[in-house]
Amino acid sequence: MAAPGQNLAVVVHRAGDLRLENHPIPEPGPNEVLLRMHSVGICGSDVHYWQHGRIGDFVVKDPMVLGHEASGTVVKVGSGVTHLKPGTNGLLQWRGSLEQLCQAPGDRVAIEPGVPREMDEFCKTGRYNLSPTIFFCATPPDNGNLCRYYKHSASYCYKLPDNVTFEEGALIEPLSVGIHACKRGGVTLGSTVFVSGSGPIGLVNVLVAKMMGAAAVVITDISASRLQKAKEVGADFTIQVKNETPQEVASKVESLLGCMPEITVECTGVQACIQAGIYATRSGGTLVLVGLGPEMVTVPIVNAAVREVDIRGIFRYCNTWPVAIALLASKRINVKPLVTHRFPLEKALEAFETTKRGEGIKVMLKCDPSDHNP
Amino acid sequence: MAAPGQNLAVVVHRAGDLRLENHPIPEPGPNEVLLRMHSVGICGSDVHYWQHGRIGDFVVKDPMVLGHEASGTVVKVGSGVTHLKPGTNGLLQWRGSLEQLCQAPGDRVAIEPGVPREMDEFCKTGRYNLSPTIFFCATPPDNGNLCRYYKHSASYCYKLPDNVTFEEGALIEPLSVGIHACKRGGVTLGSTVFVSGSGPIGLVNVLVAKMMGAAAVVITDISASRLQKAKEVGADFTIQVKNETPQEVASKVESLLGCMPEITVECTGVQACIQAGIYATRSGGTLVLVGLGPEMVTVPIVNAAVREVDIRGIFRYCNTWPVAIALLASKRINVKPLVTHRFPLEKALEAFETTKRGEGIKVMLKCDPSDHNP
Amino acid sequence: MAAPGQNLAVVVHRAGDLRLENHPIPEPGPNEVLLRMHSVGICGSDVHYWQHGRIGDFVVKDPMVLGHEASGTVVKVGSGVTHLKPGTNGLLQWRGSLEQLCQAPGDRVAIEPGVPREMDEFCKTGRYNLSPTIFFCATPPDNGNLCRYYKHSASYCYKLPDNVTFEEGALIEPLSVGIHACKRGGVTLGSTVFVSGSGPIGLVNVLVAKMMGAAAVVITDISASRLQKAKEVGADFTIQVKNETPQEVASKVESLLGCMPEITVECTGVQACIQAGIYATRSGGTLVLVGLGPEMVTVPIVNAAVREVDIRGIFRYCNTWPVAIALLASKRINVKPLVTHRFPLEKALEAFETTKRGEGIKVMLKCDPSDHNP
Amino acid sequence: MAAPGQNLAVVVHRAGDLRLENHPIPEPGPNEVLLRMHSVGICGSDVHYWQHGRIGDFVVKDPMVLGHEASGTVVKVGSGVTHLKPGTNGLLQWRGSLEQLCQAPGDRVAIEPGVPREMDEFCKTGRYNLSPTIFFCATPPDNGNLCRYYKHSASYCYKLPDNVTFEEGALIEPLSVGIHACKRGGVTLGSTVFVSGSGPIGLVNVLVAKMMGAAAVVITDISASRLQKAKEVGADFTIQVKNETPQEVASKVESLLGCMPEITVECTGVQACIQAGIYATRSGGTLVLVGLGPEMVTVPIVNAAVREVDIRGIFRYCNTWPVAIALLASKRINVKPLVTHRFPLEKALEAFETTKRGEGIKVMLKCDPSDHNP
Repeated sequence: MAAPGQNLAVVVHRAGDLRLENHPIPEPGPNEVLLRMHSVGICGSDVHYWQHGRIGDFVVKDPMVLGHEASGTVVKVGSGVTHLKPGTNGLLQWRGSLEQLCQAPGDRVAIEPGVPREMDEFCKTGRYNLSPTIFFCATPPDNGNLCRYYKHSASYCYKLPDNVTFEEGALIEPLSVGIHACKRGGVTLGSTVFVSGSGPIGLVNVLVAKMMGAAAVVITDISASRLQKAKEVGADFTIQVKNETPQEVASKVESLLGCMPEITVECTGVQACIQAGIYATRSGGTLVLVGLGPEMVTVPIVNAAVREVDIRGIFRYCNTWPVAIALLASKRINVKPLVTHRFPLEKALEAFETTKRGEGIKVMLKCDPSDHNP
Repeated sequence: MAAPGQNLAVVVHRAGDLRLENHPIPEPGPNEVLLRMHSVGICGSDVHYWQHGRIGDFVVKDPMVLGHEASGTVVKVGSGVTHLKPGTNGLLQWRGSLEQLCQAPGDRVAIEPGVPREMDEFCKTGRYNLSPTIFFCATPPDNGNLCRYYKHSASYCYKLPDNVTFEEGALIEPLSVGIHACKRGGVTLGSTVFVSGSGPIGLVNVLVAKMMGAAAVVITDISASRLQKAKEVGADFTIQVKNETPQEVASKVESLLGCMPEITVECTGVQACIQAGIYATRSGGTLVLVGLGPEMVTVPIVNAAVREVDIRGIFRYCNTWPVAIALLASKRINVKPLVTHRFPLEKALEAFETTKRGEGIKVMLKCDPSDHNP
Repeated sequence: MAAPGQNLAVVVHRAGDLRLENHPIPEPGPNEVLLRMHSVGICGSDVHYWQHGRIGDFVVKDPMVLGHEASGTVVKVGSGVTHLKPGTNGLLQWRGSLEQLCQAPGDRVAIEPGVPREMDEFCKTGRYNLSPTIFFCATPPDNGNLCRYYKHSASYCYKLPDNVTFEEGALIEPLSVGIHACKRGGVTLGSTVFVSGSGPIGLVNVLVAKMMGAAAVVITDISASRLQKAKEVGADFTIQVKNETPQEVASKVESLLGCMPEITVECTGVQACIQAGIYATRSGGTLVLVGLGPEMVTVPIVNAAVREVDIRGIFRYCNTWPVAIALLASKRINVKPLVTHRFPLEKALEAFETTKRGEGIKVMLKCDPSDHNP
Repeated sequence: MAAPGQNLAVVVHRAGDLRLENHPIPEPGPNEVLLRMHSVGICGSDVHYWQHGRIGDFVVKDPMVLGHEASGTVVKVGSGVTHLKPGTNGLLQWRGSLEQLCQAPGDRVAIEPGVPREMDEFCKTGRYNLSPTIFFCATPPDNGNLCRYYKHSASYCYKLPDNVTFEEGALIEPLSVGIHACKRGGVTLGSTVFVSGSGPIGLVNVLVAKMMGAAAVVITDISASRLQKAKEVGADFTIQVKNETPQEVASKVESLLGCMPEITVECTGVQACIQAGIYATRSGGTLVLVGLGPEMVTVPIVNAAVREVDIRGIFRYCNTWPVAIALLASKRINVKPLVTHRFPLEKALEAFETTKRGEGIKVMLKCDPSDHNP
């Protein structure tokens, strides 16, 4: 259990320098809530900041708390917060020895890590993820929530129904990438979908595409074991790619589906895969770029243009938490098997090493010393 | 087995006058195919034409073959048809005693009953169902396909995969009403949906909404047994309506869902139900009008307008067959339980009596004397 | 000129009780700006609150400042405001005798009167006008801006380019109703549009529809003089309605346009006009409800439904100020002729009497004693 | 005047081999009309087939009549045609000496050159331009309409109102490219638009974008004289590009507009221009690819993806003729100045030489010996 007033956090100082250290417990502002964190998943980007100290233009200059796939319990609310409730006895609840006196627990919430700072044109038109001044957990210089106590905008904390676990709440973040990608791609009833790359994001896209009514999903990867996982989460067809040209991959996709897919979701960022995505997609369809690789990529632009294959990227997600919670509550989707490892927060460094080695699918850190349940 | 050259058909002559009689076998035009009919479902509108001789402005003036929920086998193709194939030995195949010599069977197809006659603005913009001169099976004066042999535009015959039965093919027609309604309503991942009325069309909308990723569906009806069926096909909540006001129904819907539904699909046409649909739908949502009742209806128009609840009707469907076939082929939807009765074509009058009495859900007529399988 | 610290305001106390009285000058919050008001138009709703003390469920219980069509100058900004600048010498500028010392004037802005209080689902999805807890100027219990000094959310104050006048800025509010209506109706290049009702909102819809590329606009009214104004702002055809049935009006609309209009914008709220709007609109088109009349209205719902004529209301507007400012700056639209009367703020009661008598089109109040220019 | 039964046509036999020769007068099928051609514009693609004998995969293997920007008069209709009328005396009208006896002239029509051959999924969903088996005038092996008499699908001949000239009718084809591009780009009221390249297609996009309500359009080119023309047709800002990097061009665009454009219409196909188009477009906006250059192009794909800048090509157009005719009839657009040269059909080779030299904007061939009016 945390010592009173202490706030254990996983902090990257610079490339290769990851530490477990105590930070002060923050005070929520008028529209914020203070949360006792429960479950936080480790994302590839967390590992990347630890290993490289940067992702593209985002550079770790000052120590930064990691973590952005998270859920927790409300322990204190700002004066302007009306839709969330802290546990009975409020402030006392999370301060040491009186915790056991608390009668009613606070609201359990999933945390959307991106919070726009300004009500700019992007927010006003419903695309707040594109707001240039957005706050985002664990993207320098903004701190994440891999710690004991964390404050966040109340509007971006979503109450979890009783039948949704904290870990399901934390998994909404990776799920959101799939929801946003499939929405941008226009997946709908009867769609045929080609998912390129069978890593965690590819798997999530298979799950989401099927939930949206896709009739058939084909997925590619170089790894047979990853393709096997894709089969398990619902892919109808798999293609293990070796030395095929992009056109040959496209041809195999069409052959397996019996038609060209209307939507391709590219999750690798590799140039040859983007090319295959263009060749594979049906005229009038959409290629969604999810995976990011080199900045400059050579693509068959005329092929895409004259067949009106739209090329659409995604930047994180927006408006996905309510959708995901509704689905989890309805038991229409099962994300629990994605969690393959669990570590208490105190063993975070060990957890990061495990993630770095690529073991399992999702490593979950348990931040609440009094509750290590899913 | 049909005598050579004979074409048994179910024909309505006027209100109350339904006959089983022989018609000539038609000759397909250049872009048409001749079909040996296999399974044809009886629709409420078929019974209505038999009982009343008209639906609205559509009046049976000349004898008309009924039937528009249909599937069959290609036995002959017009000179311009390339995507469908008749059985080997073509013409001989369907003429009496030589049929057994046929080596390869013709393509099995589901029939979309509406075929636009002109390439007008509605066709060119993808809404061919609105084309004012459209041909439509069993809508006066156009003949339907409840018969042994029927010719149809090849472009509106869709090849059935081997793992989709003829009866599933025939059920695409009622399924299409749900697909079109849910598409017009914008049902998507995580949607909450209120279906008003638990008859066959209400059931189909429950099925389709869930397939499209709806998180929760609530359905109303006055009949407990119909609500029980809705439960079986996937409705999350049911409300048995008695003397409630429209506002009270709306309130119950919100209470069960935990929020107001984004989409309401109204399948009764009853004024009070349309009113309830407006009150129930969340601001910014959509009320889809599927059921048709009296021409003039009094509605709380200001309530709908100032909450930007869109009111959208549907006229039949368009672009639904490929979607439905993809879903049936992927085994993502099970419509087989909808068929509760089967009759050979020769017993069509008995089948119509059964349908009229409201027994079961769907009565299927088996038109191919050599194959009464589903 | 205002006495130091005084803030003259036009206040409705209850039905029939309109007063000009001094209020305190407000202090802007962190994300707010304080404005010296310049031009404020009188809207029909302002007169309605004065005459009746209520509009629907919105009742004047406490004294309320009127006015919501407004523009002004920034004189003070909250600590969190970065995109707007007050005049040099900031605070001093608006306090009495030192005003003339100010070197640089503050930013000139147009004011969007609706400001969502919570970042709820409606805000997050770009439809903040539907947010149930929205603040809205001069809608009880929220004060408007018909006064000398007014504070407002900085995010909803839009900087006016030098070539756009304050009065044009104030007119963005009524213009926004037309922009939102035409957007909801889907007006685009080549559209044919029927505007029902030639009052100020009807005129604005004609203006906007033409700007959006509508090929032909027909407008109806019972008043020949109002139709004449519609002609002047760009209507292609006018119909003076007398005793025609709704079907007859629809028939005249089609006859003049040479086709049925794709979009109808109904600005009267009268039952017969809504009915005419349904009959008149082309299959697959949209009827936009702008005018509000009786809550319950009888409509030919089957006619609308089976022709897939969508019925869509509007609630105020969202995301229209940037659009309107861009248009005004580009000189592509001329709203100046809409201002037919001007009064200094001190003569507000006289201005309200003029508006009540229905004279002219738009009455503008000049709130800045040092600048009565447009 | 044509000798009876003769049909002078401009025919390319292979690269560099353009001939004026007599072909037989075709006989219209049941759903076709026979037209006496009036005005046919020369397009860059016509010149390209003459000079190179191919465009991409489309190769002139057999002699092919050129021309696809065309209008003419109906002289004969197939048995199934109801919406178009030939002149009185039908067949006689266009046969030599009896022509003067004709009382009523036939319908004047503009010709949409692309006619889908099959009612496939693309046609059914309103995107018939993507139909793989589409007939298209003057795209090998399909003949164009640069001749005296030409037959065409009646559904793709659009009646011209009396106040629209034949030449305006012929110019609908290039205008359609702009309409389709601006629609795909989502140009609407208040849009800011960057058009890259000030050739004929760039000019058309400026015209159309302004008609659609764009607030500001900036256009680039390397030629000052072409930019001058863009100014004349409505461009708000011009940039003469020299050695700037793509980023520098993007920066100039933003600087002139005062913001990044929401839509970029790229009309050159040059790699550096496509790159500039991505850098220039606002987050959440759209880059439309109209110009076609090399098949493989290197683009800053990550920049586009993470800012959700959609990349959408166009293939010709669909559903543009009715829009264009409505606009021309309403006199809202003036395309007449685009015609800078006219030649009688007999001097077609001279006309092609003029076009090849790049003189003027649009060269028009006059195919009707009895009427050389616009």
